[in-house]
Amino acid sequence: MKDVQNSNDIRGIDLDQVGVNNLKYPIIVLDKKNKKQHTVANVSMSVNLPHHFKGTHMSRFIEILNHCRGEITMNTLPAILHELKSRLDAESAHIELTFPYFIEKTAPVSKAKALMDYDCTFIAETVKNNDDFILIVAIPVTSLCPCSKEISDYGAHNQRGYVEIQLKNTLNEKNKPNFVWIEEVIDIVESSASAPVYALLKRSDERYVTMQAHDNPVFVEDIVRNIALKLKKHPKIAWFKIHAENHESIHNHNAFAKVEWSR
Amino acid sequence: MKDVQNSNDIRGIDLDQVGVNNLKYPIIVLDKKNKKQHTVANVSMSVNLPHHFKGTHMSRFIEILNHCRGEITMNTLPAILHELKSRLDAESAHIELTFPYFIEKTAPVSKAKALMDYDCTFIAETVKNNDDFILIVAIPVTSLCPCSKEISDYGAHNQRGYVEIQLKNTLNEKNKPNFVWIEEVIDIVESSASAPVYALLKRSDERYVTMQAHDNPVFVEDIVRNIALKLKKHPKIAWFKIHAENHESIHNHNAFAKVEWSR
Amino acid sequence: MKDVQNSNDIRGIDLDQVGVNNLKYPIIVLDKKNKKQHTVANVSMSVNLPHHFKGTHMSRFIEILNHCRGEITMNTLPAILHELKSRLDAESAHIELTFPYFIEKTAPVSKAKALMDYDCTFIAETVKNNDDFILIVAIPVTSLCPCSKEISDYGAHNQRGYVEIQLKNTLNEKNKPNFVWIEEVIDIVESSASAPVYALLKRSDERYVTMQAHDNPVFVEDIVRNIALKLKKHPKIAWFKIHAENHESIHNHNAFAKVEWSR
Amino acid sequence: MKDVQNSNDIRGIDLDQVGVNNLKYPIIVLDKKNKKQHTVANVSMSVNLPHHFKGTHMSRFIEILNHCRGEITMNTLPAILHELKSRLDAESAHIELTFPYFIEKTAPVSKAKALMDYDCTFIAETVKNNDDFILIVAIPVTSLCPCSKEISDYGAHNQRGYVEIQLKNTLNEKNKPNFVWIEEVIDIVESSASAPVYALLKRSDERYVTMQAHDNPVFVEDIVRNIALKLKKHPKIAWFKIHAENHESIHNHNAFAKVEWSR
Repeated sequence: MKDVQNSNDIRGIDLDQVGVNNLKYPIIVLDKKNKKQHTVANVSMSVNLPHHFKGTHMSRFIEILNHCRGEITMNTLPAILHELKSRLDAESAHIELTFPYFIEKTAPVSKAKALMDYDCTFIAETVKNNDDFILIVAIPVTSLCPCSKEISDYGAHNQRGYVEIQLKNTLNEKNKPNFVWIEEVIDIVESSASAPVYALLKRSDERYVTMQAHDNPVFVEDIVRNIALKLKKHPKIAWFKIHAENHESIHNHNAFAKVEWSR
Repeated sequence: MKDVQNSNDIRGIDLDQVGVNNLKYPIIVLDKKNKKQHTVANVSMSVNLPHHFKGTHMSRFIEILNHCRGEITMNTLPAILHELKSRLDAESAHIELTFPYFIEKTAPVSKAKALMDYDCTFIAETVKNNDDFILIVAIPVTSLCPCSKEISDYGAHNQRGYVEIQLKNTLNEKNKPNFVWIEEVIDIVESSASAPVYALLKRSDERYVTMQAHDNPVFVEDIVRNIALKLKKHPKIAWFKIHAENHESIHNHNAFAKVEWSR
Repeated sequence: MKDVQNSNDIRGIDLDQVGVNNLKYPIIVLDKKNKKQHTVANVSMSVNLPHHFKGTHMSRFIEILNHCRGEITMNTLPAILHELKSRLDAESAHIELTFPYFIEKTAPVSKAKALMDYDCTFIAETVKNNDDFILIVAIPVTSLCPCSKEISDYGAHNQRGYVEIQLKNTLNEKNKPNFVWIEEVIDIVESSASAPVYALLKRSDERYVTMQAHDNPVFVEDIVRNIALKLKKHPKIAWFKIHAENHESIHNHNAFAKVEWSR
Repeated sequence: MKDVQNSNDIRGIDLDQVGVNNLKYPIIVLDKKNKKQHTVANVSMSVNLPHHFKGTHMSRFIEILNHCRGEITMNTLPAILHELKSRLDAESAHIELTFPYFIEKTAPVSKAKALMDYDCTFIAETVKNNDDFILIVAIPVTSLCPCSKEISDYGAHNQRGYVEIQLKNTLNEKNKPNFVWIEEVIDIVESSASAPVYALLKRSDERYVTMQAHDNPVFVEDIVRNIALKLKKHPKIAWFKIHAENHESIHNHNAFAKVEWSR
């Protein structure tokens, strides 16, 4: 059968990325407490396409994904990328996996435990011989408005907010990226907002977090700055983007703040 | 050209609905203050399909929608439905339009004005000679937790919530549904929560709504019951469903309550 | 600390459902081939609320979910529902779990294997002493238009469509619902469309499914009727709803058909 | 009342963007045929925040949006941005508006007319004295697979695809961006795929587009390259990004291709 994709192209246009996306796949990721965690990812995979090829061979992406059998870590991703490059005759390869990551969280007073989910993304890319890795974590938090607290005789509006952290790691002496746990990122973010968000709170905990938030009012701008100060001091972090967004309880729109930093 | 849709079907299965959906269309709706309002709807249209027809003629739905030129009110919908039934040889017809509806809202202290959006849906149906109409309005509100306020020394968690009201009208002496303004439904809902939500609040307003919410703590269950009491007394309302959902500021999940009632 | 939720309510309004939703949770479901499958569910849980209680105790939903440790099957759900009823002092309880279910699928010619995902939902409800269970499966398919094929000299437009099946099971002699595998529902749907949809197809397979679809043109109405004929004959199925929707390749809107049936 | 936002900040962190998003607003845009078109936008507005200010004044974004009364064009946006900078004491300002744009489209044979929607976004930014404008248009198309056509005895799988074009304009002699109609971008994209997508097609049109697609098979890579060739030659275009994505009718995932180019 003719291999149409492999035929010659004369339009002279290199494509940056060709691939598949919106593909759901069960994966296994590292879990700080339980070693391994089963979850489900939404996957995007691509390579570059030099100008002289008419098309890429899309089915090979799926074959490689099946072949790796779902073990996805910062350390297994480079091998997948290199297999993509070699099987698809490409100079660069790119993979993104977005998945919920679950952590057993302990309520602050009752010590009741329950699982809570955090949306995470791994982006791994290899361009020629350069490997790159970005970790993204989205963390829900409580934010209580300092202005509302200051100007009101009692109370203060507060709301659920979401903080998305994107980060790249510094390299160790073997030129490999230093490892940062998702749990570490979550701790930094939760300690920078008015209060953490929990899956399970008993009455004694609810009292605790209500007053904790009231004692720690922050604007969305404060959340971003508090986090930035901590991430800048972290020796394993080389670059970050922070996007915080409050689902304002007094409005039907959101308030957001963003910053990007590079060592 | 052969009309395949029109050919005879022998499987003996009547279909409840066949039609088109996920169709965007600009529409004009009645506006209490400005008479008319331009907006954009997501549209679904369907008819029943008797067992002896192989298929319906989907293009006619679009022709009829184009033909009505976007004037959509409780009063124009029956004509559209009857045209659907007659053009498509059907016994029942159904149309749903979901659209943002904008109201100029005045802040409580500064009296500053700004537009705020409410997601609305019209569902109109005709089965044989029976016309039916459902109005759906989704209204964002502030809710402040009575338990959190009661058990804490200060503060109380509060959050954005959404209340969806579905309602059918009583009939007037000419057997036509009595008209209820979207604005009326919004007023009933906003006065049943801890505080309304606004597009624009200046500092004096923010102080006002912060304390208003603190003075009116409600569970999601209270919101539903407060609204139910008012809707039951409304002479133009024959049936309703209420679904209230709080985007809890202390959790990453929502709390909801529902009730359905019929006169 | 005062139990505000437990206080007396005088508004006299029973609520149909109060609970939590939009909660992500890792679960384990039965897998026809591998016995067990890890996946992630979006969960909604609720109970009724009699008129004399001010509120329900939302944290208990999370405790019960944590306690069941993620083993979710048609047979474990009644126990969860009964625990909900008893812990929350309710007469009815309701749980919904939506999750991707993965099946290893074999390509028709090359026999290449890859995992493919199907969105499934379990709805379980207990009202007084009546247990009810609904299985929902959403299955992507290829549909090729019979009209387009008939009236054109060559070719025919075809597209991805989605078929959602909702079903209730007949009861066995012990008054328990008969078990139907998700795989069975998928087979019935895939054999009723123009061709199945795969995660991995090599060139020989692509040739096969292209011609398979051309040989089996179906309207969205045909898909629903073909499925309805098969489900009606299935002795373990007591009730079903079918919703098929084609993402038309020649339009920016969808075409759909629906039918509901009860034994 | 104290202006908390205006207080001094000592953390020393400049923020790239602070603002509001997820705000719905009715707007009026230029329409090539009818001069003006009413539609509804989802709006994001932001400014930078120098390190010495604790917070920005979010309510001013809404005031400025209300004040501009919804007339949004490439030419009115700079004035809005400059008002944002001046009212909010900032050096940069950014606004994004995403809205459906409707065009009356004529079917190829029957000449039947109907409105079809295209999702558009305007991004306008001013940094110090530099104004920038990006137009984004998402255009649905039909794509028919050249490989499937080549290797099969008859038929070929085809599907709905979406092409997103982002572009910046060249400047005229007065240093203002040259104007490109949304309609022009749509024409370039539709002529680069297998066939355009329509809202309304009668049987004669369906025959026409079925054969048109079969006569013009394109991979997702071809769509991107065909468009790139045309956009590069367009004298009013200085930079573009193309992202094409096919909702494969034989798979449950999508195939995509991307390219970025700068004059």
